[in-house]
Formats: sequence, structure tokens, C-alpha cells
Amino acid sequence: MTIKQKGLAPSATTFSGPAPSDLAYVPFVSVDNMMKNVLAVGVEDFIEGLAAYIEEDFRRWESFDKKPRIPAHAPQGVIELMPTSDGKTFGFKYVNGHPGNTKSGRQTVTGFGVLSDLSNGYPLLFTEMTILTALRTAANSALAAKYLARRNARTMAIIGNGAQSDFQALAFKALLGITEIRAYDIDFQASLRLSRNLAGSGIDVTVCKTAEDAIEGADIITTVTADKRYATILTDNMVGPGVHINAVGGDCPGKTELHKDILLRSDIYVEFPDQTWIEGECQQLPRDHPVTELWQVYTGAAQGRTSDDSITLFDSVGFAVEDFAALRYVHDLLPKTGHFEKLDLLADPDDPRDLFGMVLRSQAASTDAAA
Amino acid sequence: MTIKQKGLAPSATTFSGPAPSDLAYVPFVSVDNMMKNVLAVGVEDFIEGLAAYIEEDFRRWESFDKKPRIPAHAPQGVIELMPTSDGKTFGFKYVNGHPGNTKSGRQTVTGFGVLSDLSNGYPLLFTEMTILTALRTAANSALAAKYLARRNARTMAIIGNGAQSDFQALAFKALLGITEIRAYDIDFQASLRLSRNLAGSGIDVTVCKTAEDAIEGADIITTVTADKRYATILTDNMVGPGVHINAVGGDCPGKTELHKDILLRSDIYVEFPDQTWIEGECQQLPRDHPVTELWQVYTGAAQGRTSDDSITLFDSVGFAVEDFAALRYVHDLLPKTGHFEKLDLLADPDDPRDLFGMVLRSQAASTDAAA
Repeated sequence: MTIKQKGLAPSATTFSGPAPSDLAYVPFVSVDNMMKNVLAVGVEDFIEGLAAYIEEDFRRWESFDKKPRIPAHAPQGVIELMPTSDGKTFGFKYVNGHPGNTKSGRQTVTGFGVLSDLSNGYPLLFTEMTILTALRTAANSALAAKYLARRNARTMAIIGNGAQSDFQALAFKALLGITEIRAYDIDFQASLRLSRNLAGSGIDVTVCKTAEDAIEGADIITTVTADKRYATILTDNMVGPGVHINAVGGDCPGKTELHKDILLRSDIYVEFPDQTWIEGECQQLPRDHPVTELWQVYTGAAQGRTSDDSITLFDSVGFAVEDFAALRYVHDLLPKTGHFEKLDLLADPDDPRDLFGMVLRSQAASTDAAA
Repeated sequence: MTIKQKGLAPSATTFSGPAPSDLAYVPFVSVDNMMKNVLAVGVEDFIEGLAAYIEEDFRRWESFDKKPRIPAHAPQGVIELMPTSDGKTFGFKYVNGHPGNTKSGRQTVTGFGVLSDLSNGYPLLFTEMTILTALRTAANSALAAKYLARRNARTMAIIGNGAQSDFQALAFKALLGITEIRAYDIDFQASLRLSRNLAGSGIDVTVCKTAEDAIEGADIITTVTADKRYATILTDNMVGPGVHINAVGGDCPGKTELHKDILLRSDIYVEFPDQTWIEGECQQLPRDHPVTELWQVYTGAAQGRTSDDSITLFDSVGFAVEDFAALRYVHDLLPKTGHFEKLDLLADPDDPRDLFGMVLRSQAASTDAAA
């Protein structure tokens, strides 16, 4: 009991009791701070950093506990949890996919994620992952293309010019030197938006009126549409020899973008087959169809592109290890940029066996302050 | 471009660009605010509120998508994700269990959780769940005991006097009118702490020197020890007719508290059998041993206690539906108490298809401000 001067005591509504120790706090990266981090590093450098972390984690693929993502479905879309662990660190992402969301001004895909120390279970980082997922997806696409596209590739078609398309363009510029983009979307305004956003980035954008027009002369074709159904964005006759297809949009059951005949002519590369068979373009194929796992390409255990004439296809669905790598990258970045807050997320009583005592002391402090 | 008076422009490091709309924000309950919410309602009323929500959700058990929890193991402990959904709302809890944590001043069990609108995937609530889990576990135990313990039960033994024990005592007082607690722990100081914390609560605590002493005359026996191994807190000869056993501490593979012979003499009640067989006391039994699901007791489809002489056992492991109910309760409470913050967690561009444009505008605003 301390004696207080009237008028100097903090009010009961603002006084918080004893201040928590550092153990209570988890570094938190808000959307605003994520943008600050990205801008502090530079978008292309940030993507290159993500790609390096993804490549590093794919190279130690066998040290990860890998599970298919855990979904909760509704007619309007899906919420998924994507956990993984390397035995020392645990990470998971929460991500939704709701194609109708844009009608109410919401994002189709939003997310957040957590990185934790598996030796004590305490979170090391809590972060927005809407922007981070867009960046890691693009980094992941470009990283695969570095191994799969023809070395002299300079032109990329992007079919589907929504929220992911800008990041794809910048990632392919950063990692492969792609400077020509041929853009097509069923919504012409979306292509114009992409073109405007990339002005001054060193990328020339040609807005095209048809998908056929867009793929004309393209070394790489990126498909990244958002419709949640079986669609045929590319038909077989549209894809010539030597092309690398970066198929990003076919990423959940019942959602594909490519005609099956394209798959049959392509060398197919995947992240985690168990998941790709369910969610990727591969859901159109029998389970014994040959596919190559990307981590084996990155370690040298399997071959990437075999000739200038072959068609390579990265059937991208997004996998937890990529998010794990992205979380690691941001976690390592924060001490350099300082763009984060501290969140009072973990109860931290003086005596860990006395959780209720902490509540009691909070009450006492509050009563004391109000007295 | 606006003309600025020198010295009046916000600095580049603090200026955040355009303010996000309400869609960007997720209500967040910190540890501090959780304590404020609990104290605003009152601990016992809060527990009664939780129990009512848990009972409500158990009564509509069949509307839930139920999965065993998803674990990540390390030698020191486990991190688990516990998701569930009723088709309209999605919830999950992140929880760890690390028995050695108290040595470094950390909690054995900490957690946080999220409740989301499954129709658009957006989170409705992000909250600490260390304190909330302690409260919901106690509420869940007392709720089961309301159906399973003898009506005139007044005395409860609590074996294991760690962080969960205070909440168990208060929950059994609130829901069953238990006013006599007989406390035992291998650490005598833990029992004294429990006794001190409950002073003035209307509960009489007798600190006992042995487990045998503690269960003397007890109508209900709560076991809630933290050791991560097969232990025998109770042997068969210690349990007499008419007793209700609330077995809380045996809650992961390899961790049990009761001798198998007690199980064989008891009517066993469980939350979700698929999980109990793996994590509960039931891991000692063959899979065809009869158990009754609590939700069926709450709906009246199955019987609770059948006679004053029978031994009832709630083999509690904690299930996602209980956390879902707890998240719902807190979500519904916040408008009344106002004890929450708003977290800038969801990227919210003016145009949902223009995520990169949001980054660009943040950059422009920041450059503008620095100019």
C-alpha cells in the first residue's frame, strides 16, 4: 500500500497494473510496418531476399515436417492453416481465399502468420501476411523460373492482372531480368492498372486485348486468374515449344486454369506432390503421372529444363515451407529496420505457476489506483 | 502534391501514409485487456458465461467440423493448432505445452486464438488465450461435473496446485457450490500459494501433505498435474464409490495421471473420442472400451451419473469446440466492456485488386512528407 497524492494517481480505466516483462511481448508487424519494411529494403531486393530464404529452406526440404494445409470450407471460400516445422522453429500461416470478396471491398486473399521457438513454444513473430504472401508467391515463382525458364527469356505474358500480377512482374525482373510484360485480363481496367503501377519500374507493359495476343512471343507465361472454377485460360494450341508456364492461379480443388493437353506435353514441377494432386493443375491428371519436386532441382538431385524446346510447367499451389522462409526473412530483417511493434500477447506472471495471482494483482493495482 | 510549411510536415519515420479503413482492423485482446475483461465481469460470472457458451456449442455438436488437433513436437514440448468451424464461423487456438518452461520463467501453457467470419475469411477477433484457456478449461470441467458429480457434492480434492488449480476451484464454486477444497502438490509452496489466492473467495482450502490425505472425504477429485510422463497420481484403492473424478492433467500422448484399474471401475465421459484415445487417460484402454460423449449428456441423448454409488470420470483433454465457445463469448463481451484494441492486421487497399498500388501510395505519401 502506497500513499498517493490526490489527483496524481492514474485513473482506474487507464491503469494497467504491473507492467509485463519482455517475455510477455511478441514482435508484431502490422500492414503499415510491413509496407515500411518493404520500402526500406526496396521491393525487388525484398523479393530477392525472400527467394534466397525460400531456396535455402527448399534445399533442406527433408528436415521439414510437411502436412497438407488444413482447410475450413464455406460456399463463399476457404480459410486454411498452413503449419510446418524444421524441428527447432515452428511456423504457420492463416490464409483465406474468397473470390467474391472484392465486391464488398475486401481482399480475395488475406493472411497473417506466426513464427515460434519450438523449444519453448513462445512466438518469435506475429505478422500480417497479405502483402508478405503476395511477395513470397512472386519470389517463389521467379525462383522456380530461374531453374526452369530458358536462360535468354526476356518477355513474360501475365494472364490475370489482379493483386498478384504486379509482384510477379517485379519478381521476374529482379531474378530473371524480365523487362517486357504482355498483360491480359478479362477486365481491361485491371491491365491498365498494372501498366500504370509498373511505370518507372524499368518494365515495359503491353496491354493486350486477348490471351492469344498476350502470349505472342512470350518466353514465359504466367497465369494468375482468381475465378474459383475449372477454367481454360490456356488451350493446347496456344503453347509453343520452349515456353515456361508459371501456373499460379490453379490453387484449390475445383480451380484450374490450363487445358489438360498442355499438362500432357509439359515437364511438370511441383512443390509438395501430396498437396499439388489435390489443389493444382495436376488434379486433372492420374496420380501416377510423373512430376518433379522443386527441392530436388534446387539441390541438384533432379534436372530442371532439359532442352530449349521442352515446355516446362511450375504447377504452383503455395506451400507452408515458403511461408516459413518468408517468416524467417522478416524475423531476421526486423532488428535492422526497427519497423515493428511489441504486442502484449503472452501472460507473464512473476511466478509462472501463479496465473490467477497475476489477475488478482491486476485487480489490486486497479483498485489501489482508483482509491 | 501539396505545399508544406517547413517544420510542420510529419517526419518520414512516423508518417504512415493514408489511414486504413475499418476493414483493415481486427479487435485485439491483449493479456492486460483480458484481465480487465475478466475483472469487469467478475471471475466467477466470467466462468459461468463461458460454461453457458460451451454447453450451447456442445448441444449443437453435430454442426461442427471436428478434427484432432495438429501438433508439432520437439523434445521439450509441443505446439498445437486447434481449428474448428460450424460452417459460418471459424475459430482456432494456438497453444503450447512445455513442462520445463517454468525453469526459465515462462508459462508451461500459453496460447492465443482467432475467430473469423467464414463467409469472407476475415478475422473477427484476435485474443490472448493463456488466461482464457485457464478459464475455459475450468468452466468445461465444472460444466461436466454439474451433470456427473453427486448433487450434494461440497468438497473437492485438487491434486496438482499449479496455474490451473485456482481456476478449477472458482469454477466448481460458481457452478456447483463447492466451498471446501483439499489441496495437495509435491511442492508444498504451490498449495500454500493456492490457499493464499483463494483467501476471501468464500472457499476454504485445507493444505494436505499427501494425496491420500487430500482425497479424504472428497466428493470430487480433480487431478491437474503438469509432469509430461505416465504417472500414477491416483491408485485404485484411493477412489471410493460415488466419487466424480475430473482428470485434467492427462492431456497428451505419454502423459496420464490415473491407474488403469480406476478407469475400469468408472463410467467414462469424454469430449471427442478420436482425440481422447490418443491424449487422455483412455490411451491406457483398448479402443472398444465404452465411453460416453459429453455432448450427448448435455442434449439428453445419453445419461450422466446413474447412481450415487457409481464412479464417474471426465477424461478431459480440451477440445477445439471449447475454445470456439470461449472465443465467441469474448467476442460478444467486447462491445459491453470496450476492453480491446484495434490491430492493423489486414491489408486494405482502396481497390482490393491493387495491393501493390497501396505500397506505392504509402511510398509516395512518405516521400511527400519527407520532401
